Amino acid sequence: MSYRNQLLKREKVFRDPVHNYIHIQHRVILDLIDTKEFQRLRRIKQLGTASFTFHGAEHSRFGHSLGVYEIARQICDNFARNFPSQEPGDGLWDDSERLVVLCAALLHDIGHGPYSHTFEHIFHTNHEQITVAILTSPETEVNHVLRRVSPDFPEQVASVITHDYPNPQVVQMISSQIDADRMDYLLRDAYHTGTEYGKFDLTRILRVMQPYKDGITFSMEGMHAVEDYILSRFQMYMQVYFHPVSRSMEVILEHLLKRAKLLYDRHALSESFIPHLLVPFLEDDFTLADYLKLDDGVLTTYFIHWQDSSDPILSDLAYRFLNRRPLKSAQVTEDTKDLVPILQKKVAAVGYDANYYTAINNSFDLPYDAYNPKAANPKTQIEISQPDGSLIELSTLSDIVAAISGKFTGDERFFFPKEMLAETTDNLFAETYDSFQQHILNGTLIHTSD
Amino acid sequence: MSYRNQLLKREKVFRDPVHNYIHIQHRVILDLIDTKEFQRLRRIKQLGTASFTFHGAEHSRFGHSLGVYEIARQICDNFARNFPSQEPGDGLWDDSERLVVLCAALLHDIGHGPYSHTFEHIFHTNHEQITVAILTSPETEVNHVLRRVSPDFPEQVASVITHDYPNPQVVQMISSQIDADRMDYLLRDAYHTGTEYGKFDLTRILRVMQPYKDGITFSMEGMHAVEDYILSRFQMYMQVYFHPVSRSMEVILEHLLKRAKLLYDRHALSESFIPHLLVPFLEDDFTLADYLKLDDGVLTTYFIHWQDSSDPILSDLAYRFLNRRPLKSAQVTEDTKDLVPILQKKVAAVGYDANYYTAINNSFDLPYDAYNPKAANPKTQIEISQPDGSLIELSTLSDIVAAISGKFTGDERFFFPKEMLAETTDNLFAETYDSFQQHILNGTLIHTSD
Amino acid sequence: MSYRNQLLKREKVFRDPVHNYIHIQHRVILDLIDTKEFQRLRRIKQLGTASFTFHGAEHSRFGHSLGVYEIARQICDNFARNFPSQEPGDGLWDDSERLVVLCAALLHDIGHGPYSHTFEHIFHTNHEQITVAILTSPETEVNHVLRRVSPDFPEQVASVITHDYPNPQVVQMISSQIDADRMDYLLRDAYHTGTEYGKFDLTRILRVMQPYKDGITFSMEGMHAVEDYILSRFQMYMQVYFHPVSRSMEVILEHLLKRAKLLYDRHALSESFIPHLLVPFLEDDFTLADYLKLDDGVLTTYFIHWQDSSDPILSDLAYRFLNRRPLKSAQVTEDTKDLVPILQKKVAAVGYDANYYTAINNSFDLPYDAYNPKAANPKTQIEISQPDGSLIELSTLSDIVAAISGKFTGDERFFFPKEMLAETTDNLFAETYDSFQQHILNGTLIHTSD
Amino acid sequence: MSYRNQLLKREKVFRDPVHNYIHIQHRVILDLIDTKEFQRLRRIKQLGTASFTFHGAEHSRFGHSLGVYEIARQICDNFARNFPSQEPGDGLWDDSERLVVLCAALLHDIGHGPYSHTFEHIFHTNHEQITVAILTSPETEVNHVLRRVSPDFPEQVASVITHDYPNPQVVQMISSQIDADRMDYLLRDAYHTGTEYGKFDLTRILRVMQPYKDGITFSMEGMHAVEDYILSRFQMYMQVYFHPVSRSMEVILEHLLKRAKLLYDRHALSESFIPHLLVPFLEDDFTLADYLKLDDGVLTTYFIHWQDSSDPILSDLAYRFLNRRPLKSAQVTEDTKDLVPILQKKVAAVGYDANYYTAINNSFDLPYDAYNPKAANPKTQIEISQPDGSLIELSTLSDIVAAISGKFTGDERFFFPKEMLAETTDNLFAETYDSFQQHILNGTLIHTSD
Repeated sequence: MSYRNQLLKREKVFRDPVHNYIHIQHRVILDLIDTKEFQRLRRIKQLGTASFTFHGAEHSRFGHSLGVYEIARQICDNFARNFPSQEPGDGLWDDSERLVVLCAALLHDIGHGPYSHTFEHIFHTNHEQITVAILTSPETEVNHVLRRVSPDFPEQVASVITHDYPNPQVVQMISSQIDADRMDYLLRDAYHTGTEYGKFDLTRILRVMQPYKDGITFSMEGMHAVEDYILSRFQMYMQVYFHPVSRSMEVILEHLLKRAKLLYDRHALSESFIPHLLVPFLEDDFTLADYLKLDDGVLTTYFIHWQDSSDPILSDLAYRFLNRRPLKSAQVTEDTKDLVPILQKKVAAVGYDANYYTAINNSFDLPYDAYNPKAANPKTQIEISQPDGSLIELSTLSDIVAAISGKFTGDERFFFPKEMLAETTDNLFAETYDSFQQHILNGTLIHTSD
Repeated sequence: MSYRNQLLKREKVFRDPVHNYIHIQHRVILDLIDTKEFQRLRRIKQLGTASFTFHGAEHSRFGHSLGVYEIARQICDNFARNFPSQEPGDGLWDDSERLVVLCAALLHDIGHGPYSHTFEHIFHTNHEQITVAILTSPETEVNHVLRRVSPDFPEQVASVITHDYPNPQVVQMISSQIDADRMDYLLRDAYHTGTEYGKFDLTRILRVMQPYKDGITFSMEGMHAVEDYILSRFQMYMQVYFHPVSRSMEVILEHLLKRAKLLYDRHALSESFIPHLLVPFLEDDFTLADYLKLDDGVLTTYFIHWQDSSDPILSDLAYRFLNRRPLKSAQVTEDTKDLVPILQKKVAAVGYDANYYTAINNSFDLPYDAYNPKAANPKTQIEISQPDGSLIELSTLSDIVAAISGKFTGDERFFFPKEMLAETTDNLFAETYDSFQQHILNGTLIHTSD
Repeated sequence: MSYRNQLLKREKVFRDPVHNYIHIQHRVILDLIDTKEFQRLRRIKQLGTASFTFHGAEHSRFGHSLGVYEIARQICDNFARNFPSQEPGDGLWDDSERLVVLCAALLHDIGHGPYSHTFEHIFHTNHEQITVAILTSPETEVNHVLRRVSPDFPEQVASVITHDYPNPQVVQMISSQIDADRMDYLLRDAYHTGTEYGKFDLTRILRVMQPYKDGITFSMEGMHAVEDYILSRFQMYMQVYFHPVSRSMEVILEHLLKRAKLLYDRHALSESFIPHLLVPFLEDDFTLADYLKLDDGVLTTYFIHWQDSSDPILSDLAYRFLNRRPLKSAQVTEDTKDLVPILQKKVAAVGYDANYYTAINNSFDLPYDAYNPKAANPKTQIEISQPDGSLIELSTLSDIVAAISGKFTGDERFFFPKEMLAETTDNLFAETYDSFQQHILNGTLIHTSD
Repeated sequence: MSYRNQLLKREKVFRDPVHNYIHIQHRVILDLIDTKEFQRLRRIKQLGTASFTFHGAEHSRFGHSLGVYEIARQICDNFARNFPSQEPGDGLWDDSERLVVLCAALLHDIGHGPYSHTFEHIFHTNHEQITVAILTSPETEVNHVLRRVSPDFPEQVASVITHDYPNPQVVQMISSQIDADRMDYLLRDAYHTGTEYGKFDLTRILRVMQPYKDGITFSMEGMHAVEDYILSRFQMYMQVYFHPVSRSMEVILEHLLKRAKLLYDRHALSESFIPHLLVPFLEDDFTLADYLKLDDGVLTTYFIHWQDSSDPILSDLAYRFLNRRPLKSAQVTEDTKDLVPILQKKVAAVGYDANYYTAINNSFDLPYDAYNPKAANPKTQIEISQPDGSLIELSTLSDIVAAISGKFTGDERFFFPKEMLAETTDNLFAETYDSFQQHILNGTLIHTSD
């Protein structure tokens, strides 16, 4: 039997806390899981700094990737059973697409590195480009497995991830406003954080999902389940992903790496503090192999070293990151943005380098949007199908979704050292602290009359 | 108010997936959580190599330590409400013991390092001694916090952990056959692995727990809940903790560290492969500060380097550990132990160094034991209290507990490379493989007639 | 000790699937649970006909009443610990209100009878008036218990339920847009139906609840948890409480009782079909004792008899109710209301009495409303408290809540026999069926061109 | 297409709290669910009087029957996918057996009536015989549906339930020591009582189940999951099914029906207290149609009437049953059985008719037994299959199962009025109470020295 169609003699399962079991049926999938690039995902936390806020959220991208695969597998099973294509172009499901879907689902995050968001910001890497590289570079084990399927299979899988694959059903299953990726991470992050917000009725959504010629639609009877999913996602953003403490730890991480880069550039790091595995990135000249050596533990290992550095900022920020010493923050609006430099001066006045101990950080998300051709990044809107086959866009049917549709949600915050909120009696900097604190009310920056 | 009695203005909570919330009421507890020694537990996985078998089990010792604290807190609340001591020696609960209990619960695992079991085996460290050292050495942040309570408070907390504290209620709450530690880890490990086995009725057990002069007892109405807890523990050992794949990964880890030590001792590691933070341990001359720099990520960072080593065993074992390439195994009994050297020779014959690619590993646990003064390590038996106040030892009441009482459960396994189970047709080593395989039936070593 | 303050020697618990345990501490509460009026709630299903749609939803009002009590108890515990009143009028919690709260919580539904909504419609009973009667009539066991607390205690408890009690904190705990009643039924109905929609973060909401002088408020950090509760409630209404099949079974029940009343009034029921326990209601001359004899089983016992009646409508409707033969339905809008009489004629044309086999039924709910003095029934709005103590109404803070605030949600449906949707080939009434069916598209009535 | 093979155009689902969804694929199954005999199960509680102890346990036999069907369906799916028969007699699964399995699973409890255990004891009915009658009597709707499959299909389904069906795989799936029936009721009863004890790993057990020529076996890797299931069952018996309060309510029910029968036999029931639907049973001359009119509500409706009876025993016992006034109890052993008549005299001495206010009740279960040809009712033992295909009986492999294998577990209890435990000071019957109480220690009858 061809490698493409080779099924395991007996289905293999992985016990999973979210989906109970992950079912592996294809030899190709098992081989992909066994690659070193995929195993590496065990060493990269799914939620980065969020575990500083929700201590249960220590799960890695490995389990999430399996989970996305499992949801995609269940969708394929449903489509193959209930909506099998009879002839090309009938808008139903062609199950020969299954393997490309499963591989894309499993591998969609394979390019992620440690604390990707922050890392990319400092070192100008891009996890999506790296994903494509891992799939298509002949040097990787992943590419080796994919090539055994067919010479162009690596590019096919990559094109699903880059949204260039011709079949929109395949693309939307992996990447759309309601896809296997988002459905898994909401449930998984909710499970590990121990919050309820991310829960929605996955089984019901999978039941009402249907293929049609331009992608995927949801039947009317499941409209409220889809609505509930959108709201769960909104809640997870508001309550978990945008939590100020996690963002504060990201700020510290970013400033720590920025400081290390500065010191490296100035040759101010002595040999024992040089982060050898990061040097290609500090030099801005790295290979895929360099990238694949990185993980969360590599970074924290350097931070452990840096705690002993003689550079007070490097050692302090490393200490703060390792030992969870977040900055405090307050919300900033357009009206109060002018206060930021003033407050930074006050922070500097009590002895902190404002470049490293203050920051502006914004976190916004578009919980849902109907298709908007003028948008920077137009979204595939969610279509609800009526019994007679006609389609209606979700926010047309749901007042609640309409309420958040097209609106960026989140906030912009000013971060500063906790010490700025100290009691102001009997203190050398009492006056500075006091004037700083007058600009914060109910967690928000405010102008004062003086 | 004294530091000892200082309560937070408003209770602080940590969201926890197992207990919903961890409630922090004392300033001392919050300060302990903020120490760098305690924060370090975030970087040490609770179950070591078990996440290679159950991918959800990536949780750290940090959450477990909070969980043990929370259970101990709930026990104290129950005892203080329902069984408050009226006069010294009445066998009831003296709530002035609360702080020492909470601190011991929180800190009982603070001496753990990365992959403790294996690490200790190779480097002769001892996490219990280190726990005591962290509590009592003036150099630690933990000691600094504890000393603020009273000069002898660090030693008091340490004596709970070493079982030397005079009040047996306090000791048994933290360490006995049914204590806050075990109750938390069973529930937490069950949660993260996604198995059901470890679940038992915590709330009911906490309700039937009672202090008495010699420790802690459980009222008769809760006997079956206690029995169920014993069985949950038994099941977790059989199905999770003793899983052959996790043990195989431990074998690989142990052999990897053993190989590194040999190479280091022989000065055969070139500079870029020297594990600087491990050197004090390789030299068998380490300080507490050296120990506290270690975590899971430090070890795997060295393994990432070692993959590129020119020593084929070091690089291969590092690859196998990082990328989950377990050995296979079969059960060994007294009767078949003689086969091990024979099989090791066959493994060597096909080209593997049997010192690094085979192992005998046994995992046994005593699920429950009544007090047995002749035992190497006599256990505090579980006492069930009758309505008239008399006590009956658990296994007297439960046939099921009696069935496993005093019996070590587990198995001894022989580990070897997966390749030994290869198909034997068309293969250079066909004959060797074949003769090897004839000694394995139903996952167990057997003698053959030839 | 006075009866009012008498605590049980040891707290008594009821195992509860939603709250794990219900904790009973007061003798008064235990005595109330033991009254026959309260025990009777075991025989009245919480959700009436909903179990015909969600078969797990067979739970009674008994468990719900305990659950409301338990939530109220937890709120009192929280308020007593964290917000104890120091002096009258300080807006904090006066724990001497606890007993009246607990009793009102436990007894708030005690006046409910079988399938209340439908029953009240036909027989002009009113469960709220009956609740007050049960509390205040000297003939009940409940009144007997309450009177032992103090002579005016029955009236005090009743005044909480009628919203006349002076302390708004007490009233809002039991009855407001976010009260112990609603919080329990959402969680409990979600649990028993097996849906996820009703789940929200009860623990967190209880943590952020605070008393203030005009009632109860929620601190800003919990705003999203409150928002999520509003949405859960909205989802439960949309997906469970307004389910067309359950409403169809209510329609059948109503028509069945209506038919029985007609036959009774006409003396057309023979002796063996006379529903003796219902006679006082058929005669519109009933006592409290008559009412307290009714339960779900009494009604269905008469239906079992009626199945054998010679009146074809009575026996058929009884059969349909007992054996779940729902009517079908389609949504009606203002625009299509004119079609109803036309369609009813078609139903009549194929032989059904349209008075009994068709119906218009609407189910609407106001998911949330800010205080609106012009409303028929102005709501206590949900107030979110800021760190500086100021209050902001919920929909001001939440776009999502604003989207549904003040809008009645639900639909109006036309019910008709399933047979009207039969295949129209080879059928005596093919033409009628066909013309009927042309007026239904996508589950909604439509006008057609002809 | 033949009725036997007719599949629904689209699978229909019922939302279920235990299995999430029940999947209906065959027209036959949907038609069976719609029969009046099956719908009647909605009005019969699964656990009878247990809801007096665990108030959540109000679920009916309807949901359980669907659940057994669903588990059987999943087993068939697994067998059909992984173990399809290639030729007759190969010991693998012949999927043409599927429909008979599904029907037997769905209908296995259809003969149950209200409070079966007690009812059968008084009225000498037998729910298993009635099940067969419902399947095979031409008068039932169930028979009508089954006959449409084939004329002998009703008898085939019946023979599965009576264990006479030739294929042992089919019989064991529905009725053995680990069957779809038991697996569903443990999970469902655990869910609704809110206890954890009944939980076990259903998914894993279903995965390791395999057909073989003499029935069903479980592969070795799942041995501990099977062991855990046996223990869950044991725990549910000990903690839920044998709960003394539920048994006490059964005693009251039995005595109430016994009293009614006596009064009826003596013509001492006036017309308004005659339980018309029970008359055929009181006369010991009933038809299947008579039986099918009974449900829980019919019985309680008569009890509501009987509360007003002038017979003090009838009215008191009816009051006690409706309003949950259990008797108290103490354990009886062989040694103390002689005390029972003595204690009954004391109960009589204070004014209770000992025939109605005392009882001996025993509840025993055999949690597991290996096949024992000498047993009254030999059990199909649980076989564990080894990798080489050999079978080993479960208790041979598990010390824990061996510990309870073949041992009847439970207890015998003496029930008596709560008043016998009254405080004995200042009381007319103080001396009698006192001497009664001296015979009870730690919940067990004891001899005293006097």
